[in-house]
Amino acid sequence: MAKNRVRVLPLGGVGEVGRNMWVVECGDEIVILDCGVMFPDADMLGVDLVLPDMSYLREKTSKIKGILLTHGHEDHIGAVPHLIADLGFPPIFATGLTHGLLGNKLKEHRLLDKVSQVVITDSDSFTVGSFHVEPFHIAHSIPDAVGFAISTPGGMVVYLTDWKLDHTPVDGKPTNLQKISELSQRKPLVLITDCVRVESKGYTPSEATVGEAFDNIFAIAPGRIIMATFASNISRVQQAIDSAEAYGRKVLLAGRSMENNSRIALEMGFLRAEAGTLIRPHELNSYPDDQIAVVCTGSQGEPMAALNRMANRDHQHLKIKPGDTVVVSATPIPGNEVSVSRVINNLFKLGADVIYGGDARVHVSGHAAQEELKLVLALLRPEFVLPFHGDYRHMIIYRKMAVGMGIGYTNENVLIPEPGGIMEFAPGFGKQISKTPVGYIYVDGTTVGDVGNVVVRDRQMLAKDGMLIVVVGIDMSNGSLVSGPDVVSRGFVYMRQSQDLVEATKDTVRAALAQPNGDALTSVDSAYVNRKIKEVVSEFLYRETRRRPMVLPVVMEV
Amino acid sequence: MAKNRVRVLPLGGVGEVGRNMWVVECGDEIVILDCGVMFPDADMLGVDLVLPDMSYLREKTSKIKGILLTHGHEDHIGAVPHLIADLGFPPIFATGLTHGLLGNKLKEHRLLDKVSQVVITDSDSFTVGSFHVEPFHIAHSIPDAVGFAISTPGGMVVYLTDWKLDHTPVDGKPTNLQKISELSQRKPLVLITDCVRVESKGYTPSEATVGEAFDNIFAIAPGRIIMATFASNISRVQQAIDSAEAYGRKVLLAGRSMENNSRIALEMGFLRAEAGTLIRPHELNSYPDDQIAVVCTGSQGEPMAALNRMANRDHQHLKIKPGDTVVVSATPIPGNEVSVSRVINNLFKLGADVIYGGDARVHVSGHAAQEELKLVLALLRPEFVLPFHGDYRHMIIYRKMAVGMGIGYTNENVLIPEPGGIMEFAPGFGKQISKTPVGYIYVDGTTVGDVGNVVVRDRQMLAKDGMLIVVVGIDMSNGSLVSGPDVVSRGFVYMRQSQDLVEATKDTVRAALAQPNGDALTSVDSAYVNRKIKEVVSEFLYRETRRRPMVLPVVMEV
Repeated sequence: MAKNRVRVLPLGGVGEVGRNMWVVECGDEIVILDCGVMFPDADMLGVDLVLPDMSYLREKTSKIKGILLTHGHEDHIGAVPHLIADLGFPPIFATGLTHGLLGNKLKEHRLLDKVSQVVITDSDSFTVGSFHVEPFHIAHSIPDAVGFAISTPGGMVVYLTDWKLDHTPVDGKPTNLQKISELSQRKPLVLITDCVRVESKGYTPSEATVGEAFDNIFAIAPGRIIMATFASNISRVQQAIDSAEAYGRKVLLAGRSMENNSRIALEMGFLRAEAGTLIRPHELNSYPDDQIAVVCTGSQGEPMAALNRMANRDHQHLKIKPGDTVVVSATPIPGNEVSVSRVINNLFKLGADVIYGGDARVHVSGHAAQEELKLVLALLRPEFVLPFHGDYRHMIIYRKMAVGMGIGYTNENVLIPEPGGIMEFAPGFGKQISKTPVGYIYVDGTTVGDVGNVVVRDRQMLAKDGMLIVVVGIDMSNGSLVSGPDVVSRGFVYMRQSQDLVEATKDTVRAALAQPNGDALTSVDSAYVNRKIKEVVSEFLYRETRRRPMVLPVVMEV
Repeated sequence: MAKNRVRVLPLGGVGEVGRNMWVVECGDEIVILDCGVMFPDADMLGVDLVLPDMSYLREKTSKIKGILLTHGHEDHIGAVPHLIADLGFPPIFATGLTHGLLGNKLKEHRLLDKVSQVVITDSDSFTVGSFHVEPFHIAHSIPDAVGFAISTPGGMVVYLTDWKLDHTPVDGKPTNLQKISELSQRKPLVLITDCVRVESKGYTPSEATVGEAFDNIFAIAPGRIIMATFASNISRVQQAIDSAEAYGRKVLLAGRSMENNSRIALEMGFLRAEAGTLIRPHELNSYPDDQIAVVCTGSQGEPMAALNRMANRDHQHLKIKPGDTVVVSATPIPGNEVSVSRVINNLFKLGADVIYGGDARVHVSGHAAQEELKLVLALLRPEFVLPFHGDYRHMIIYRKMAVGMGIGYTNENVLIPEPGGIMEFAPGFGKQISKTPVGYIYVDGTTVGDVGNVVVRDRQMLAKDGMLIVVVGIDMSNGSLVSGPDVVSRGFVYMRQSQDLVEATKDTVRAALAQPNGDALTSVDSAYVNRKIKEVVSEFLYRETRRRPMVLPVVMEV
């Protein structure tokens, strides 16, 4: 690596949202920016989480001086407990709330005492190795979020992701435009920025507009109000509490992550409630319906979350009934549309009035729309820009937008990052110079990495047509069938109703194992018998049913 | 059943879109309205299609006088080939294009010569049994669509689904408001209507507005234009052809259903093109890029359709390249958002400019929005209304809308139909009187009904954590283990990397099959051994991995 160049590369998702993790490297020093998980795509069957691939760092752990976290969302902090040991336990730099939320995770993984959590503010600079880091406040859908300006010997990298402008944020702290303006005086070399809402023209509305919609609902709802939102959206929870207090309602916080996050935010002063506002489940019956508000998890239709349990009459304390007003204060994340829709339908079935969708104005995004992206680029004027944290198309549209502004950006200095693409920068120089392999690292259950693409492909095959086991006992001395064939199947056909098919399958196996003249095979080994059975049974079943179950022969040598 | 009552019941989906099929019964006569399929939900693993459940009709086939089809979409005609034999081959009444599209299906199922296809027009009434049927034209996203007014001895049922008003339809035939107005003079008893866009305020824009957007694109696109849309949306294809002709481009129709449907529509005069406009794949290279337009399938991100093949560089004739303009002239059907998004990203990666989404105005719905639903209700004034063909919430919102109009509708005469809910009507009387069981009937491969809920549940389990087969040979005379345990797994862990886990699993089996004193079991039967292995292995694997693969013991008696 050339001296005095800054190397920048993503180890997680760039043309997809999630698994945010960047490496900034200069000389012998590395800092890591964010360390998040991705929730699996629908075709990653049975996978719980997807992690960034840190193969690039494997031989370099001694160079890692620290991890900088921007904010407390899963896609930015969720991989820390899974990867921190392999990274050699570098210190983690983050603001108070981010550390609070991370600490909760570390505790669950019994890592709390092994990790060095350095608390930073949004205004005091600090050093990581020889890099000078200046954090600055940004407005997002979680409080205490920051961007970072990282000055390395090779130049300044600004990491500004998951932000919007919001001139009237609920916590009173807008994105620090003064700081961004000031950084522009110092010739920032590279800006790494999210671009997920570049397709949305204009500006993202302020979080405060949601509060107005809440007030309108709280003013007229005849019975209980049940509001589902992201547990991490503390400002949203705050606005629900504010509306409840204004209209004389008690508030129950429901759902594990809602309770956990709110507890941490209350303790740290990021969430405020008057004494007596927050109640416990057993107090629900002490108040009339029109004095109750519930703020709960499940806005994405997650099967086990509070809202879906209520919609399925499966919640311990809350049964939906006519007169309830349910507010879904969120937009479905792509892929969750059907689950969310199903929950809403079930709530209607139970007689609730449900308020949801764009027209209701009960949700705004935490990400910058196109005019905001333009404004910050025009203000900061970095030499190079790496848009990420969006689909691939968003990155392309961002580049087109930047070039179209006519302030000097070309396709050469708006780089479209690739997963694992190693880019190097110096004043007047910036390009991808090579690539490190990065794949999907799956977490399934408690273990990381033992489920790979082969296993997921098998699951896809099993999911489609099920499987069929053929058991035979073969006398290896003469190749004759001494027991079986027996057939066991799951997920293929309902066996009891398909006896003809089962018998015909057995006949197919018997015929295949017999010689043309009806004698047993003379020369035999179990691998051959295995392959033979698989071949004839697969072919037979496809001919009969047009399905391709996984055929698994079990050959017992007797 | 009371005499002179009309019985109405749905056998397919009502609180979900698809599987449209209604029974209208009076005296000893039945007509069936539509006979459609549903595309499976994401959790119906491996299922190809879902059919209505016609158990109610099983003992009544002699009463069935005919099937009336409104239009040629899959969710209205797709179940005919699967169910027509069980229904006793009643005659099918439909307009020319609907019959053309149905005929194509019947041919594939070798049923063409067995089915009586009666061609009707949108203006000539006819009789089915003793019922008098008056068809009338409606505007929808496919030409030659009709509604039906069915006069029975018990009263008139109006079936008006999948319609919009559209004063400027591409085929020049708007919804026949005069007929609807005229029917209102004859005291219609029941209206069955779709309600899927009741959440959308105002009016659905005319199909003609899409043509204007097309013209704007065709006027400036620098290279080829590749447009994906529904193969059945003949008017949309017509508008693409019109724009191509106006701007001097040749048109290639690509994708099997696009070719089939267009051929039928061209033959029947529903689609028109000047001589020489339509070209064959091998002619693509004879014209410069800016004289080429391709109209293709794949607007829903279907993996095997033309657009996705192009996006994956897997199409025989078409490779996407920079300079291409791709137009996605459709909205993702709920559940397809992620697939569509993936295709669009891949097209961007190949350098295409992609035009999609609401802002681009390259798609309009074929269904009525709220003001249209109100207008038709106010005009027709049926005594009872059954909203369907929407999610459950749409039915509830429709009822609220109808009641809120203040023209006499109450919760009692806007009935929310249930699947299999048997409703009876007479002037002054209308309610659900009982219920017939209806379930999901799955088509998987070539067969109907042999995949049921048990099989699908097994697939879900296999999809989540895979499976593990444990093979043992037991000497039944003394219960001793004479061969194995062997372990085979798929979709659980990658076996080669998990030898320790495999060995520990085998040890667990050995230990379970040994007596406390280390001796072999004394009393033994294979069902017991089977259950024992399943229990200990499941428990062991869950403890080790927090996963629950399906454990399948294979016990060979030796």
